[in-house]
Order: sequence, then structure tokens, then C-alpha cells
Amino acid sequence: MFRTEIAVEFGDCDDAGISFYPNYFYWFDCTFQRLLRARGLDQRELRRRLRVVGTPVLEANAKFQAPSSYGDTIEMTVELTGWTDKIVRAQYRGSCRDRLVVDGYEVRALLRRDDNAGANDVKSLGIVPIAPLRALLEPSSA
Amino acid sequence: MFRTEIAVEFGDCDDAGISFYPNYFYWFDCTFQRLLRARGLDQRELRRRLRVVGTPVLEANAKFQAPSSYGDTIEMTVELTGWTDKIVRAQYRGSCRDRLVVDGYEVRALLRRDDNAGANDVKSLGIVPIAPLRALLEPSSA
Amino acid sequence: MFRTEIAVEFGDCDDAGISFYPNYFYWFDCTFQRLLRARGLDQRELRRRLRVVGTPVLEANAKFQAPSSYGDTIEMTVELTGWTDKIVRAQYRGSCRDRLVVDGYEVRALLRRDDNAGANDVKSLGIVPIAPLRALLEPSSA
Amino acid sequence: MFRTEIAVEFGDCDDAGISFYPNYFYWFDCTFQRLLRARGLDQRELRRRLRVVGTPVLEANAKFQAPSSYGDTIEMTVELTGWTDKIVRAQYRGSCRDRLVVDGYEVRALLRRDDNAGANDVKSLGIVPIAPLRALLEPSSA
Repeated sequence: MFRTEIAVEFGDCDDAGISFYPNYFYWFDCTFQRLLRARGLDQRELRRRLRVVGTPVLEANAKFQAPSSYGDTIEMTVELTGWTDKIVRAQYRGSCRDRLVVDGYEVRALLRRDDNAGANDVKSLGIVPIAPLRALLEPSSA
Repeated sequence: MFRTEIAVEFGDCDDAGISFYPNYFYWFDCTFQRLLRARGLDQRELRRRLRVVGTPVLEANAKFQAPSSYGDTIEMTVELTGWTDKIVRAQYRGSCRDRLVVDGYEVRALLRRDDNAGANDVKSLGIVPIAPLRALLEPSSA
Repeated sequence: MFRTEIAVEFGDCDDAGISFYPNYFYWFDCTFQRLLRARGLDQRELRRRLRVVGTPVLEANAKFQAPSSYGDTIEMTVELTGWTDKIVRAQYRGSCRDRLVVDGYEVRALLRRDDNAGANDVKSLGIVPIAPLRALLEPSSA
Repeated sequence: MFRTEIAVEFGDCDDAGISFYPNYFYWFDCTFQRLLRARGLDQRELRRRLRVVGTPVLEANAKFQAPSSYGDTIEMTVELTGWTDKIVRAQYRGSCRDRLVVDGYEVRALLRRDDNAGANDVKSLGIVPIAPLRALLEPSSA
């Protein structure tokens, strides 16, 4: 399990004074990217090592259990669970001072671009086996 | 069913050149707010008429079926389905030129602030029956 | 002069109920990108035709003349003025129903990446003469 | 002078792999709000104590001296200078490992809402003397 802290900023809050909900997904993504970084990786490294475009999210879900607002710090945890051939599930929980504010998940895959396609042809993207990512993140799984 | 158009902007795309996924939830919210506006309502009107803080999202989910990128226009539809005493489900589908790019939903409620609480005490918020919102949005349901 | 419309969305507003000011710069950028598109261009096209990384902003300035809020539509104009060897100034004005809400500018350049550098080495970026961009945008200037 | 750290996240970067420039203004705002917090204040406190709507930005400017990208940490400083009757200038400098990436400023004022106006009438906002804010931030200035 990986743990990180998210500061809720004034600009993250809406007209009702509480965190605008799409920001929680931004914070999920931040947490995932920090997890990569804690393993010596990032999207640039993955591109170089695995020749992929990235780790796109195929599905995302969040339950907003309590509001948060600026000045709050969200203690966020993520666990990578349920690896299959093609996907991994990143499971998140965020709390403010022991009050659960959000839990949710992302389903992530590994995306490779067709070598014959132009560099910016987003339609040529394809999901590939995720084992190489798992080998980097969980060396003992190999 | 309500229909609106979302322009994907350069600033909505990430380092892989495709829409950064939290933006899809921002676009869900935009679509919901435009639906309210098409009914002569918005968050200010709801506050005034229903004495509520807003229509917070209790849960959100999206499946990203295909990438989109800047220059694309997403044709987004929303349907309000599954009204219960306390919640409504807003069901979204977004397509680019007949290619489905996203489908998902938000579960929304009606939030009232405890009158005895300070104006900015986010902990005093409570879910109240949603019928008054339904009566405004679907007059024939009353 | 190029003209476009920006819809202010609920999620663009802060706890005071007015547009959070960094969004105006996002709207400046949207306006610039739409201007490119109106000329048959975009960042992908520029990369392909001019072998550049993009049109980075070296300086940005805005004066916020009046607040805007969700439900407002900003009529935004941009003019490209003051071309020099290396930069162009994009001058913006945004109004809501004849009330000026913002005016400002961006200074933009053309960025080429050193061919010997890795694809993701952001330190190897360099400003190059902007004439090729001007020739695309103002064919009569050549 | 107040100092804080900003982590550049993957989602803050654009299709060119570098921080999308409106985010720097979001980071300026974050820095200002953290400065308030370091003085025991925030927008809610200001509302309660000074009966104001907030500290709106009348003008903002930034010069982008070098690109930053995800994985970078920006060391940001802010100084409040040039107080007049109605405004204060917040002067920012942001560096990544001793490389200056941005410098700029915000001009901020104190905004009071006309008591006779409705709670959501953004047109009834007016600038008032800024001395009460200065007294809170620089007690020795009184």
C-alpha cells in the first residue's frame, strides 16, 4: 500500500465551498503517479522502458463519503489489486483527520501505439499485456 | 433526454495527447448544469427556491471507451433516471462522430445546511428529500 | 481579429461564486487554439509542418475588469500584434453583454527541440525564429 | 517573505509534456492562500472578521523563464509589497533546483458585497479599503 498527502486548495472548491468532485479523480491520478515515482518510474520512464504511450484509465469510480474543503489535508492510500492479463485496479481511500471522505478505484491498462501510425493518431492506440508493468512495480511477482 | 456539445480543448489533454480523464467528470457536471439552465434553473436558483446548498454528487463512474483529443467535439447526452426519495441518477453518454468515447453516471442528492450552523461549516451539511428538485425538473411527476 | 464564445461553467467558479481567475488564462489559450483551428492548424499540424514542439507562452497578463459567473457567456476576441523575429503578442478582450470583464495578452514563441536530445528532455528546448508561423497565419505577410 | 513547495503533477502538463501555463496562476493563488493560512487566516476567516467576499485578483502577470514538468518541485516565494489604500501586490518567484522557472505578480484587493444586494448578485461587489487586511497580515504596520 502506498500513502501520500493531498492538500485541498482554495481553487479546488466550488461555489458551495466544498471540493469540486472531478478534483478527486485528479487526486487519484496524482496518487498513482506518485506511486510510480516512489518506484523510480514515471510516464516518461515507462515510455522509454516499455515503449508504451501510457497507463490510461479505462474506468473510474468514486464514492464521496463526506465533503472536504480548503485547508483540509487528505491522507490518500492506493493499493494495486486484481491484476489480470490486461488491466490492474488501483483502489483508493482518502481521509481527513480519520473521517473517510472518498473511496474509489481506477482500472488501468498499458497502451501501445501502432508503430505504423503517425505520432499523433490517437485512433491507433491499442491495449497490450500489462505483465511488463507489473514486473516493474512488483518485481517479486515475476 | 438532454443533449449538449463539449469542445475538447488543448489544455484538457495530457502528455499523451489525449483528454486527461478527470475532465470527463467536469464535462458530466457541465452537462448537468446546462440541463438545469435549460429548465430555467441553476445552483443559485435552487438555493433561493429550495433553500439548499446544492446538488452534490455522492458517487460518480465513467467508462472511457475511446480516447478523445483537442479539436474533437463530444456530443453529450444526459438522462435523469432512477429517482428515489433521496437521490437521482444522471446517466451520461458522450460520442465523437458516432464513436462512443465515454459513458457513466453521477448519483446526485439535495443538500441542506443546518440553519444553526455557521455559513461555512461544511460538516453541518445534510441530505434531504429530493422530491422538490424533481418537481422543478419534471413538473408532470408531481 | 478572431472572435469566439466561452461559456462560464459552474466548475469554473470559486467559493465566492465568481470565475476563479486562472481560468481566464485557460480561456485565452482556448481562444488562441481555436484561432489556429480556424486557419486549418493546430499544435499537431504545427509539429508536423514546422518541426516544432509548440507555441509556448513566455509571458501572460490579464486585468480583471469585472467578475463573471456561471451562466455567463464571454465573447472573447484575440488579435495577433507586434510580431518580432522571435515572438508574437496575442491581445485578448472578453466581454459579457457589453460589459468588459477581462483584457490581457500572451507573448508566444515557437519552440524547437534539439534533435540530439531525448524526446522528453524539456531542458533541450529552444526558441527559434517565428516567421514560419507567421507565414502560415498571415500568408500575405510573406 | 513566505515560502512553499508546489509539486508539478502529471495532470498539470500538456501535450508538449510541460506545465500548462494557466497552472502557474493556480500555484500563485495556492501560495497566497497558504500564506494566509500561515497567519491563521483563510477566506472563511476573512469573511467572518472583515465581512468581505474575498481577496479578488485585479491583475495577474507571469513570465515563464523555463519549462517545468511532472516530477519537478517548484520552490515558490511570495512577498506582499506596494500596499496602497485599495490594493496590495503579491510578488512571486518559483524555482526548480536553483533554476528560475517563473516570476510574476498578482494585484489583490478586498471585496465587499453591497448589503442590500442578493447573496448571489455578483454585480453588487465593490472594492473597499485594504487596511483591515494589512492589519491582520502585518500587525506591526498599524
